[in-house]
Amino acid sequence: MKIHFVTKNLHKINEAKEILKEFNIDVEQIAEDKYEPKELSLKDVAEYNAKFFYEKYKKPVIVDDTGVFFKAYKDFPGSHPKLMFDLLGYKGLLKLLEGENRDAQFRTCVGYCDENGVRIFDGILKGKIDTKINNADEDFLPYERIFLINGRPMSNLSRDEKNKISHRADSLKKLGQFLTQKKI
Amino acid sequence: MKIHFVTKNLHKINEAKEILKEFNIDVEQIAEDKYEPKELSLKDVAEYNAKFFYEKYKKPVIVDDTGVFFKAYKDFPGSHPKLMFDLLGYKGLLKLLEGENRDAQFRTCVGYCDENGVRIFDGILKGKIDTKINNADEDFLPYERIFLINGRPMSNLSRDEKNKISHRADSLKKLGQFLTQKKI
Repeated sequence: MKIHFVTKNLHKINEAKEILKEFNIDVEQIAEDKYEPKELSLKDVAEYNAKFFYEKYKKPVIVDDTGVFFKAYKDFPGSHPKLMFDLLGYKGLLKLLEGENRDAQFRTCVGYCDENGVRIFDGILKGKIDTKINNADEDFLPYERIFLINGRPMSNLSRDEKNKISHRADSLKKLGQFLTQKKI
Repeated sequence: MKIHFVTKNLHKINEAKEILKEFNIDVEQIAEDKYEPKELSLKDVAEYNAKFFYEKYKKPVIVDDTGVFFKAYKDFPGSHPKLMFDLLGYKGLLKLLEGENRDAQFRTCVGYCDENGVRIFDGILKGKIDTKINNADEDFLPYERIFLINGRPMSNLSRDEKNKISHRADSLKKLGQFLTQKKI
């Protein structure tokens, strides 16, 4: 079978292709932006957009939304990781955790919609926030430089290593299992 | 003359009525929500919405957008004061300023649109962020409890005192002056 991934990010498409080919699922890109109002949770964004783009294209679609959660705060940076980094920088992010619990999680919600409606698949990657910025000169996403997985900065992991354990891989594998079992 | 203020907040309507009656301007409410995507600045939100609601109602309209800015950070909490408070609480807001410059500002942008196009009027209220939460048991907006004006918590000021010095009053007075001069 084939599903359509609504994203402008080609790296996400390649990651999804790699993970879902083990389930004999093809992935094709729909290069559109999702609708992401600031008051919606990851799940709500994934659900709303999966329904919207299924209605638009009448083909099975997936939409993902990813957030970062610091245990020391209620819901921060939550579903707004990029905005928070833009407003506070590393200075603010690290300051917030001085003397606090450093546990953190990446979470992805993948919304899948077909003629039977929408389903949500959650993926989680647990770690801690470092006290310093790693790999500052290289090309990484902001949180990858301060997120530690078993004590190792995420920015030190190879793409292969990341694809094995990432929050997005976790949710895509759950989607793959769901779709495979459904077909049997 | 009469202008229409797009807001669901009756307190804002009353404040605007009081300020603009000195300029012989009537204020009427249009009880609608403004469009406020997270990537837009105060000015962009005010401008976009003033144009939008002028086009919709074909009457002179105003729309305001307010933010809070901590000098120690680039653009925080910026045009997202409510979201930041919801995500971080007082714990996070106060933590961010430990040992930092405590200067802060409220800023309002009022967008006014009529048949001649859109104009923006900025208002500012300067102060400092306190190290503690004031008037915790009473009914105040979150930032009013931690914002100090000449050393006094904003939540200790009477409504009259606030209306005289507030960021919104500042921008509305500029609007009043503009509209009055235009008519002469």
